[in-house]
Amino acid sequence: MDDVTDDALLEELASLLGRALLTGAGAAPHEVPWRGPAGRALAIALPSDLSEVRSVVHWARRTRTRLLPQGAVTGLVGASTPPPRGPRPVVLSTDALNARTEVREADAVAVVDAGVRLSALNAEAARIGLELPVDLAADPSVGAMVATNTGGSRVMAHGDMSHHVLGVQAVIADETASVIGNLRGLRKDNTGPDPTRLLIGSAGALGVITAVAVALSPIPAERSTVLVGPIPDTAAVDLLTALRQAMGGRLSAFEVMCPAAVAAGVERARMSGDVTVGQDPDVLVLVEASGPAGCGDDLVEAVASVNLPDTSRTDAAATPGSGVPGAVVPHAEAWGLRHGITEGLRSRGEVLGFDLSVRPSDLPALRAGVRELVASRNPALTVADFGHWGDGGIHANVLIPAGAGFSSADTESLRHDVYELVGDRFGGSWSAEHGIGPLNADQWRATTPSAEVSLLTAAKDAADPRRILGHPGLPFG
Amino acid sequence: MDDVTDDALLEELASLLGRALLTGAGAAPHEVPWRGPAGRALAIALPSDLSEVRSVVHWARRTRTRLLPQGAVTGLVGASTPPPRGPRPVVLSTDALNARTEVREADAVAVVDAGVRLSALNAEAARIGLELPVDLAADPSVGAMVATNTGGSRVMAHGDMSHHVLGVQAVIADETASVIGNLRGLRKDNTGPDPTRLLIGSAGALGVITAVAVALSPIPAERSTVLVGPIPDTAAVDLLTALRQAMGGRLSAFEVMCPAAVAAGVERARMSGDVTVGQDPDVLVLVEASGPAGCGDDLVEAVASVNLPDTSRTDAAATPGSGVPGAVVPHAEAWGLRHGITEGLRSRGEVLGFDLSVRPSDLPALRAGVRELVASRNPALTVADFGHWGDGGIHANVLIPAGAGFSSADTESLRHDVYELVGDRFGGSWSAEHGIGPLNADQWRATTPSAEVSLLTAAKDAADPRRILGHPGLPFG
Repeated sequence: MDDVTDDALLEELASLLGRALLTGAGAAPHEVPWRGPAGRALAIALPSDLSEVRSVVHWARRTRTRLLPQGAVTGLVGASTPPPRGPRPVVLSTDALNARTEVREADAVAVVDAGVRLSALNAEAARIGLELPVDLAADPSVGAMVATNTGGSRVMAHGDMSHHVLGVQAVIADETASVIGNLRGLRKDNTGPDPTRLLIGSAGALGVITAVAVALSPIPAERSTVLVGPIPDTAAVDLLTALRQAMGGRLSAFEVMCPAAVAAGVERARMSGDVTVGQDPDVLVLVEASGPAGCGDDLVEAVASVNLPDTSRTDAAATPGSGVPGAVVPHAEAWGLRHGITEGLRSRGEVLGFDLSVRPSDLPALRAGVRELVASRNPALTVADFGHWGDGGIHANVLIPAGAGFSSADTESLRHDVYELVGDRFGGSWSAEHGIGPLNADQWRATTPSAEVSLLTAAKDAADPRRILGHPGLPFG
Repeated sequence: MDDVTDDALLEELASLLGRALLTGAGAAPHEVPWRGPAGRALAIALPSDLSEVRSVVHWARRTRTRLLPQGAVTGLVGASTPPPRGPRPVVLSTDALNARTEVREADAVAVVDAGVRLSALNAEAARIGLELPVDLAADPSVGAMVATNTGGSRVMAHGDMSHHVLGVQAVIADETASVIGNLRGLRKDNTGPDPTRLLIGSAGALGVITAVAVALSPIPAERSTVLVGPIPDTAAVDLLTALRQAMGGRLSAFEVMCPAAVAAGVERARMSGDVTVGQDPDVLVLVEASGPAGCGDDLVEAVASVNLPDTSRTDAAATPGSGVPGAVVPHAEAWGLRHGITEGLRSRGEVLGFDLSVRPSDLPALRAGVRELVASRNPALTVADFGHWGDGGIHANVLIPAGAGFSSADTESLRHDVYELVGDRFGGSWSAEHGIGPLNADQWRATTPSAEVSLLTAAKDAADPRRILGHPGLPFG
């Protein structure tokens, strides 16, 4: 759209919705991403039901206006906010799509509108003892959790968001703004390949998700947490293998933190005892077990039965001489340490973050490889890594102190080489859980086989032939 | 192909593979389906590696010969054997694609070639205490488990096959017979929508699956089984809700059997005690708990704590007066009864089978609805149902005694009305776990929204533009 006609078109859109669009200061919260550069929207549309979403899509299609579906703006790869340059899109916020939060006890299923927040869904599910077991620091909208295929700390026990989705309802941008998918919430429905699965992780480029049906799980009656270490990172892999075998599905988190990450987390957390930070390549491990009542508190025993080298107690509350190579710490305290890391690191200067995953057995070698690479570039740079080792995930953060003389070209070059290391040497992923967006689109283009690009382009052709849906910086279609 | 050129073309195909094709009597095991009418193949090709699969696909594409990917011929909807009428296809059997069965303990991952049987994979995984937790009466190939998205008795705890798949390697029928997907076996890899997920449940119509990476789980150290009932079917739903809450992920099976099914199963099983068959609408419930060691045998206690009406003991081994509304029976015996049902029913005459699913809370009403429908058609017909109630699955079998005077037109009309009942009244599935094939293709055509058909057709256009892949009776693309 050019400026001459913008006003008339937006007026038409507002009249379709029967209410004003957000512009100016009202639009600002929808324009600033969690991370990365901000841009401007033409306006923010807030449809409140399926039929209004269809009207907006139809309007965008007809006027060839870029439409950017947006949840709670908690994404980390820039896919839900306007680009800093180029034509301004209309943002379709799902904030007003929140009328329905239906939970069904006998079926352990929830059907929710896309704009419902994870916290609101879980508050409702908790009334019948159930939860959507996705653990995140943020509070995203459920629709966007599907659109970005959210991960988190409990993927090792429960899988990522795709494992919880029983059905997706979405509006695509074909000629009639068709509604696809269903909200029947069936756990078994094996009637051929399901094209609506392509919407999972599509970042809004294949359709606007309007509602989802998700499987719920019982809230664990018991949860216990142990901090183990510092131990050598290779011993952490052995510990993971042994605990998985001993505890099965009750092992619900296995988070590993390097000394620099522990130090940053401790600053932000309130710990009742001392935490031994240790030295690289040693790490501290947060192990969580959870499950139904009656299974007993066997986590400490399970950890104690693993033969670990050179372990230290990490909490003053541990009983000296108990033979436990770790310490049972209050749940909130352990996670407070873990969740304090990101903020603690941010206070130390510029952080270049990598959201990587490899096979768990390769994590120690990947840590060493990243450190070697970073040290070879600039001795002032340091690495602070932590992550969900239980499923091979690791957040490798490079700290760039002020005055290090590390240019943005240096940053891009380092980014390239880290991605090459994780991909070529370890067969790993350059986006373990953050999904796809303009911030990592180049890497997608560099690594996705052309036959897979063709399949996605075909789907895009069918779902959005006029190319109006999703962030313009997304690489597919 | 016409007969004049068949021989020359097949000779060329054999030379590409460096070995003979199976024809005549050698081909017969690849031509007869588990269920439904048999047809004939031009020949059976047995490629033994990825490059040979590509050669076969390339040849089929060039010669425009229909190519039918086939696993272990255990499917129930006719998708992997030649059609009884029409041009004869070449069957691409994955039997010789079985060189690799790689299991990795630290990562709990297996990478296997498509032709490897489930039993062979699990034998290898058992050496390190792991398993692919899919429970089936048959022994399918792992590639076909992905192509059909296999379900089974433990879906309620572990999900269907799609939940275990970490990666698929497949050959599509585009211009260069491209290889798509990967076998890196990452548990977290969130780099945008994954088009290879469309191969799951595609019945070979979008590509030939050549190898897969699957997540493994620890073999449960403890497993216990209780038969509960007979109890009213509505009480079975309450029991499911209560046990899910009490036991969480340790509740690994919840199988419900109607009196006629129990009677048929008992005939084939060796039970050490009497089983009370009961009367409709009462049902017998097989409950299985499993998990790591140390959780104790709390299943009996959990069942006892549920307030159930009018329960009876079902096993002579139960201690009288113990207050347990069921009986702990040997694992093999309980499952022997459950798995004996199909064969037991088959010995009673013609069986018209329905593989349905609804929300678990709707199962009692669905049972009643099917019975009412069947009785209204022909008083000689009876219904014997059983199934995986834990995930809403139910196998509703209509027994048609010889001489009932029930024509094939009557059968088609009944099938139509049962599908309408499950779909329109309950929002359920007409193929809960058997997948899609020529035997239920009409129902797919009748119920799949046109926008979803368009998305699948777009994928088919990209993956198989010449329409040579998969059974010709498949509905999509």
